[in-house]
Amino acid sequence: MVDSETAPLRHLSSSPLRGARIDGLPFPVTLERGTGESLHAQLSGRLRAAVLSGTLPGGSALPGTRTLAASLGVTRGVVADAYATLVADGTLEASVGRGTLVPDGAAQAPQGQVIRPPPWVTSFLAPPVDGPLPSDGVVFQSGVTTTRMLDLRAWRQAWAVAARLPVGGQYGDPAGERDLRVALAAFVARQRGLAVTPDAVVVTAGTLHALNLIVRALLPPGSAVVFEEPGYRAARQVLLDAGHTVIPIPVDEGGLRIGPDSPPARLVFVTPSHQFPLGGRMSLPRRLALLEWARRHDALIVEDDYDGEFRYDAPPLPTLASLDAGGGRVLYLGSLSKVLMPGVRTGFLTAPLALIPALVRARTLLDFGHPLPMQQAVTWLLTGGHIDRHIRRARRWHAQVREALTQELAPLAPLATLGGIEAGLHVCLHLHGDLDAQEAAAALAGRGVHVTTLDTYALTPDCPQALVLGFGALTVEEARRGARVIAAVIRKGSSGVQQEQRSSGQSG
Amino acid sequence: MVDSETAPLRHLSSSPLRGARIDGLPFPVTLERGTGESLHAQLSGRLRAAVLSGTLPGGSALPGTRTLAASLGVTRGVVADAYATLVADGTLEASVGRGTLVPDGAAQAPQGQVIRPPPWVTSFLAPPVDGPLPSDGVVFQSGVTTTRMLDLRAWRQAWAVAARLPVGGQYGDPAGERDLRVALAAFVARQRGLAVTPDAVVVTAGTLHALNLIVRALLPPGSAVVFEEPGYRAARQVLLDAGHTVIPIPVDEGGLRIGPDSPPARLVFVTPSHQFPLGGRMSLPRRLALLEWARRHDALIVEDDYDGEFRYDAPPLPTLASLDAGGGRVLYLGSLSKVLMPGVRTGFLTAPLALIPALVRARTLLDFGHPLPMQQAVTWLLTGGHIDRHIRRARRWHAQVREALTQELAPLAPLATLGGIEAGLHVCLHLHGDLDAQEAAAALAGRGVHVTTLDTYALTPDCPQALVLGFGALTVEEARRGARVIAAVIRKGSSGVQQEQRSSGQSG
Repeated sequence: MVDSETAPLRHLSSSPLRGARIDGLPFPVTLERGTGESLHAQLSGRLRAAVLSGTLPGGSALPGTRTLAASLGVTRGVVADAYATLVADGTLEASVGRGTLVPDGAAQAPQGQVIRPPPWVTSFLAPPVDGPLPSDGVVFQSGVTTTRMLDLRAWRQAWAVAARLPVGGQYGDPAGERDLRVALAAFVARQRGLAVTPDAVVVTAGTLHALNLIVRALLPPGSAVVFEEPGYRAARQVLLDAGHTVIPIPVDEGGLRIGPDSPPARLVFVTPSHQFPLGGRMSLPRRLALLEWARRHDALIVEDDYDGEFRYDAPPLPTLASLDAGGGRVLYLGSLSKVLMPGVRTGFLTAPLALIPALVRARTLLDFGHPLPMQQAVTWLLTGGHIDRHIRRARRWHAQVREALTQELAPLAPLATLGGIEAGLHVCLHLHGDLDAQEAAAALAGRGVHVTTLDTYALTPDCPQALVLGFGALTVEEARRGARVIAAVIRKGSSGVQQEQRSSGQSG
Repeated sequence: MVDSETAPLRHLSSSPLRGARIDGLPFPVTLERGTGESLHAQLSGRLRAAVLSGTLPGGSALPGTRTLAASLGVTRGVVADAYATLVADGTLEASVGRGTLVPDGAAQAPQGQVIRPPPWVTSFLAPPVDGPLPSDGVVFQSGVTTTRMLDLRAWRQAWAVAARLPVGGQYGDPAGERDLRVALAAFVARQRGLAVTPDAVVVTAGTLHALNLIVRALLPPGSAVVFEEPGYRAARQVLLDAGHTVIPIPVDEGGLRIGPDSPPARLVFVTPSHQFPLGGRMSLPRRLALLEWARRHDALIVEDDYDGEFRYDAPPLPTLASLDAGGGRVLYLGSLSKVLMPGVRTGFLTAPLALIPALVRARTLLDFGHPLPMQQAVTWLLTGGHIDRHIRRARRWHAQVREALTQELAPLAPLATLGGIEAGLHVCLHLHGDLDAQEAAAALAGRGVHVTTLDTYALTPDCPQALVLGFGALTVEEARRGARVIAAVIRKGSSGVQQEQRSSGQSG
């Protein structure tokens, strides 16, 4: 719309601009002022649209600049500029003797058809992660955490510091900024007794991202990988998607049951601190057997230190990475997702120095490294001791929740027994009665308590009947309320099954 | 060290704690107080180390708890706790009748050997990106930008706002937070005339990350991909690393020379706004021919809108994505790396809706999505109009730098001619004399001016002689100074070659 208060341009004649029909063109052209778009840009846009739609077919001759300018009431320069633009981008061509033309056989833009994706596009299943969860009731979810104990003052200050740091226009170090790698090396030494040089640290976007880097950087196509069964399904899917062969090896309360007879593989993925999802801690003999297996088969070990920061009664065992010191076999994965919050999407890996260049290359070609402001804020939180203090507060918080769960659920034995309670942010409730885990989960959902069943983490069919209860995001009250419902459902379900058995026994 | 001011523990007898040698153990044990580590944890650590090192070999019987406690001067409970810990983690075993034992055949930790990486680990070449550049002189670098025109007040406020937003313990939407996707859809409509729904937007960590997602989500193994020659080498390497076949198709000032006779492929990667590195803008007929080619061969088009925000004289052409509206063929990649700064590592893609689930699945399994504080800060900068204002300021800044370069280098014609000056943050200087591009670059480096040569972006051997001059990070003065050195070296080099030819002609 022409704004009546806009001062007329000097080159504008008294001819109407709106709705003017241009002699020699088979469509009306409306130019508008006050839109911020110049007149020649508007005109070239209209003409291009006409060519693309076929309104101006191939071979059409355009009016001379003088004619068109007169009919539009603009200077000849406006039309000449528009024509020049369109000739430059190939929409029109300037022909000696014939003036300005639509090229013969000018292609037209596709008109409104909706085409399906190409038939060769791979159709993947949904990712093997939990979808959005109910917002009501008590949700026992794994992999999440409450941020109620977060020191909001320190958190805000970290971002204020990050925002005040000089902002450069260069790419950063794809392995992570030096200060952060130094802080992470010190962190892992303090928290886990793992001695590494900052050169052996690569900043990642979390555990799964780290596994992706390792797979891309190091694994030849079609490698065999030993994986915990049941195990961390997203990590397993990363390996399967990349075309590797997953060899499931069972897990018990002492971790991965690896031994001299275990099959060879190029890689093994383990969660020794708190096995996901069974919750066991890998025993020292098993740790050493795993290292021995890796040496024998020239395999690498990916040690996902899942929940390693949250231990309750048991003191920490040495990490596989420190047991292997100098052995060049172990890649250790740490993450701030459970320590701080998943939304920071910041973690790290440590690796034998000989493997670092390939990992940094993979990070470069994947995403050029981690966002700089994130790195700066996390560096400040680490070096100021805020993350260590947060871990101590979180450990106390989660210990109370775990205690409430234990109080409510331990009395279920022998009907159901708790596993994996020494560490971490989830427990496993093994059902020994006749109750099926999926039936129990369905009955619980009906009463507003949402749990996962162990079989969703298994690759093989005969998985024990158990419920996985993530409590990282719960308060003591929520956990207790949820646990009481679980206890009631299991007692009722079991007696229901028993009654049914009795009655079917009577009728049989 | 025992701190003399530490109050003695109640269970501590008067026996010396330091350097006490335990009867029945073949090594001294030193326990210390005031270290923050409990006595039983210290004892279990020392005993575990002795088992791991073989000092306590398999089959050894440990002293009774009473004996060991007495010799250490601690309560029996301390020793009992340490033994229980070690039995629980498998380091020791409790045997009825024989007391506590080191298990027979206890594995030992590897001792100090340094093993090379497994022989099967893939050895990759260095990533095809520029390494660290000299900090002195004038560095013409592509892909970077100055942040001198950044509104620091708005930048800091964005982080303050992000830090004040509620911090949850849940994972976010792997496609990106809704607010950011809405803001990005509005941004791309405003800046590039591309109409998409927020559901068609996926937040990424930049262009290369977006290409990785597309490759993983959509491309079957061993696909053929058409690629600009010369072109963006990191993107090409992503395709090669993933095992796909790259078909190089030459580029000229009108962009990719695609036509009805071009070979079929599943994907094509193009930079139509400002071809990297030649700098040409893909003409409208070529754009339409590319869409036609994609339709004929059921191919997808990845449109990297490289430098699309920085246009100087020429008005924008419609994006391939808008020309294909409804066609389901084009994935459009945008990035804030050049718009704002590479360190934000934030970009986006838009895709036909039918392809979104596979892309979101790939993002989930790659890294679970983008860091939340980054998303919040960028959302605030977008919705407040700060990024649009920044682009306008940056466009004016870069236009002046480009003008200075043109003034200094255009007079070199016909010895050397400038290409790709209509848009973007780099120009291409084509050498028509006898001067070799690599010789010129070496001569320039000797005079403190650092440039890249066109051949480093080419896959095939016969690449034109040209220098690629990225100017995004330069001031007008730096650019002018560098350009004068370039002009001098090219004039001198050419006359040197002419003199040489003359003298060799005389002698021949």
